[in-house]
Amino acid sequence: MKTVAVLGVGLVGGLIARDLAKDERLAVVAVDAREDALLKLAGVPRVTTRRADLGAPADVAAVVAGADVVALAVPGHMGTAALRVLIAAKKPVVDISFSPEDPLLLDGEAKAAGVPVVVDCGVAPGLSNLFVGRAAAEMDTVDEVLILVGGLPVRRVWPFEYRLVFSLTDVIEEDLRPSRIREHGREVVRPALSDAELVELPRAGTLEAFNTDGLRTLLRTIDAPNLKEKTLRWPGHIEKMRMLRETGFLGDTPIRVAGVEVQPRAVTEALLHDVWSLPEGDDEFTVLRVEVAGRKGPVPRRIVWDLYDRTDPVTRATSMARTTGFPCALVARLLAEGAWTRPGVHPPEILGRDAGITAALLEGLAARGVAVDRAET
Amino acid sequence: MKTVAVLGVGLVGGLIARDLAKDERLAVVAVDAREDALLKLAGVPRVTTRRADLGAPADVAAVVAGADVVALAVPGHMGTAALRVLIAAKKPVVDISFSPEDPLLLDGEAKAAGVPVVVDCGVAPGLSNLFVGRAAAEMDTVDEVLILVGGLPVRRVWPFEYRLVFSLTDVIEEDLRPSRIREHGREVVRPALSDAELVELPRAGTLEAFNTDGLRTLLRTIDAPNLKEKTLRWPGHIEKMRMLRETGFLGDTPIRVAGVEVQPRAVTEALLHDVWSLPEGDDEFTVLRVEVAGRKGPVPRRIVWDLYDRTDPVTRATSMARTTGFPCALVARLLAEGAWTRPGVHPPEILGRDAGITAALLEGLAARGVAVDRAET
Repeated sequence: MKTVAVLGVGLVGGLIARDLAKDERLAVVAVDAREDALLKLAGVPRVTTRRADLGAPADVAAVVAGADVVALAVPGHMGTAALRVLIAAKKPVVDISFSPEDPLLLDGEAKAAGVPVVVDCGVAPGLSNLFVGRAAAEMDTVDEVLILVGGLPVRRVWPFEYRLVFSLTDVIEEDLRPSRIREHGREVVRPALSDAELVELPRAGTLEAFNTDGLRTLLRTIDAPNLKEKTLRWPGHIEKMRMLRETGFLGDTPIRVAGVEVQPRAVTEALLHDVWSLPEGDDEFTVLRVEVAGRKGPVPRRIVWDLYDRTDPVTRATSMARTTGFPCALVARLLAEGAWTRPGVHPPEILGRDAGITAALLEGLAARGVAVDRAET
Repeated sequence: MKTVAVLGVGLVGGLIARDLAKDERLAVVAVDAREDALLKLAGVPRVTTRRADLGAPADVAAVVAGADVVALAVPGHMGTAALRVLIAAKKPVVDISFSPEDPLLLDGEAKAAGVPVVVDCGVAPGLSNLFVGRAAAEMDTVDEVLILVGGLPVRRVWPFEYRLVFSLTDVIEEDLRPSRIREHGREVVRPALSDAELVELPRAGTLEAFNTDGLRTLLRTIDAPNLKEKTLRWPGHIEKMRMLRETGFLGDTPIRVAGVEVQPRAVTEALLHDVWSLPEGDDEFTVLRVEVAGRKGPVPRRIVWDLYDRTDPVTRATSMARTTGFPCALVARLLAEGAWTRPGVHPPEILGRDAGITAALLEGLAARGVAVDRAET
């Protein structure tokens, strides 16, 4: 029996712990600083809960001492420090903390420690990388990669037609952070919310896509002259966010109003938090399209992946938690089974090069009701 | 020689003082609490400046003691108190302070004092009332009155395509205060920013109109089953203001953000003040359409008034100051000449019943470059 420690058992980490615990060959140690998060897992067979401060390196080291594999699901700002501790402890890791730092910087340490570390293993980054990696492996040259991804409410309510499926602050960051993409072989930086265009997707219908800064490792691991990621919203949303941003409502610099100093962004976040909360009982969906175009010998190839997932009608788990957590849980299993042992830091596009690993992950997703279509044109 | 006291010589009052002072038969006393406002009138022939607190009744009484006529151009919240003092002092008054209180409530006092008081004498309320009153006087029955009015920038800049031509707080009030209109003989109240529709006007082009609460005295003085006023904006503006309002950005109730209490509206006004300021050198325009439909005997009549005015290219006076200030200055002249002596509080629709008075006002406007077209269909 192998033990998997899940560090951080919030919305996504909790789902990962439950998923792993369904496997009778695994023992799960669920770790969090928040008692309420742990309480939700109390009584789940094969799950032990432990309270620990995951921002404290010594606590992290102590809590994973008996684990064979670690799934890291802490907030981004805690990710890199925790990962460093886990590598030093020689633990195979799958990571969905999406830290702002470049995860590949720890590649040397992981190689030296001889442990496999799979990073950015959610939906996008995550499955998007896996699909790009798989498609690229089936071509001799890749010309173009396009990733479209969004998490949206099924029921559209004016004016924003948007609901929070992860942190509001991270959502607002997407509207502010310039996006790094590659065009005709050149790295270019586009403003956030730029290049808005309507796209039509199989189950979601017509959505609007804008540049976001989500390519991360792909800019280095994929040798293609054109690479871009765009985030999806219901049409009209982008214009409203641009309006707020350009008028100063997302500004960090405090302004003086009626005798007090206040950041406009803090006021805006307080207001949007209220109107963007997903109402109890409302469904949301996650949509991901990955298009990879290139050549195999003289033959042009174009591989298109489409994922569409909705709120689980029984457990009420959001599609965003499902499509982020399941890839992580599935890779944790592969690590526990010894199916992926290559030392170093590897984002999912590297796993995608392996047809067997990719097939196992797709099979695991399908078994959990996450449908992925692959088409070739 | 008659003396006219102009109380409040800001943007509009200053224009009134200058306009009156062009007349060699008049002496003008310009009064304000702000030294800088008075300084702008220093050296203008026939203008004497006096500093006084126009919120203090005794100061108002003292400063108008030697005046034959008073033009009242103070901020709305000071209007009614000042008007009461002027009536007690038996001064003929023309008023553009647009106080929130009903000006007709002072009718009894004015009649008892035997002085003529013309209120709401700007553009809308003001010329709009004059045109409605004139058209109504030429019909036996009035079925419908529609007033469309707006002050807008010539150069449209995304996202709001709007610039301040009067107080920001008053503009925001228009987006919040429910509008009282009359439909099929019934008084109804519509939310602010409601019933947005596109309209096409002769010189302005396509604009968007929404319900505002500007009918004031017309709801009582005009016996018509349908009466409505709408404010004009460049298309798209209304949706953005509704979005801000419905998301809470115009809320008066303080919210707690990062340890301080702040009114979202105060933050929004601070941000909008910056982006809505009319840039130096940019022109604005004022557009007013008044449609009155009814019958003269058995014959249907429809009278349409169109006013369009732009920033004065030489003096740089805004069209909003011109179309608000000139009617006030022209009526001050009529009062000084004794052309309008009827005691009581009279809004301009009452003056409009008099064909001679109306013609004199239109002639005065034309002489100042404010073009008004009248058409009948």
